[in-house]
Amino acid sequence: MEPSLWLVTLVGSISAALTTGAFVPQVVRVWRLQDARDISFPTFAIFSVGLAGWVGYGVLASSVPVVAANSLTLVLALVILGLKVKFDRRHSPAGA
Amino acid sequence: MEPSLWLVTLVGSISAALTTGAFVPQVVRVWRLQDARDISFPTFAIFSVGLAGWVGYGVLASSVPVVAANSLTLVLALVILGLKVKFDRRHSPAGA
Repeated sequence: MEPSLWLVTLVGSISAALTTGAFVPQVVRVWRLQDARDISFPTFAIFSVGLAGWVGYGVLASSVPVVAANSLTLVLALVILGLKVKFDRRHSPAGA
Repeated sequence: MEPSLWLVTLVGSISAALTTGAFVPQVVRVWRLQDARDISFPTFAIFSVGLAGWVGYGVLASSVPVVAANSLTLVLALVILGLKVKFDRRHSPAGA
């Protein structure tokens, strides 16, 4: 039995909103603490490259939702990465 | 001009490997530091729910790669979440 297209689209849309929106509280937390030592630089660097790849996939597959969701997540991942570099530099004499 | 299917599949596969594999160094970092205070609990909780949604999407859409990649990322996100709870509890008298 084929699931109806609206159900597949609904589950995909909710999932995309969650996996994108999830990174907002991480940006807020790092900003509030002014600290990102526990954040892995390679994780957010590799994640960003992968998200850029998903944007490319969305372009090739002509999928506006894939491009939109992954572009937003990419912006959030790059903000987290930028804040990590900034705060790690500030804390560097005390320890990395 | 339609991009060839192999190119779309290749870009998607590389992107999936990157956005999944990215979380391995985050697990390693939290484990090494025995600290996850800078990690946002809501981020990894919401991300996990979203990833479970993507697994459901993959099942509905009969896509083995979507199920596989998101299941693996979900396991990594849950490990990070579990380590955060563990290490935050240990550090709780000193500050959260």
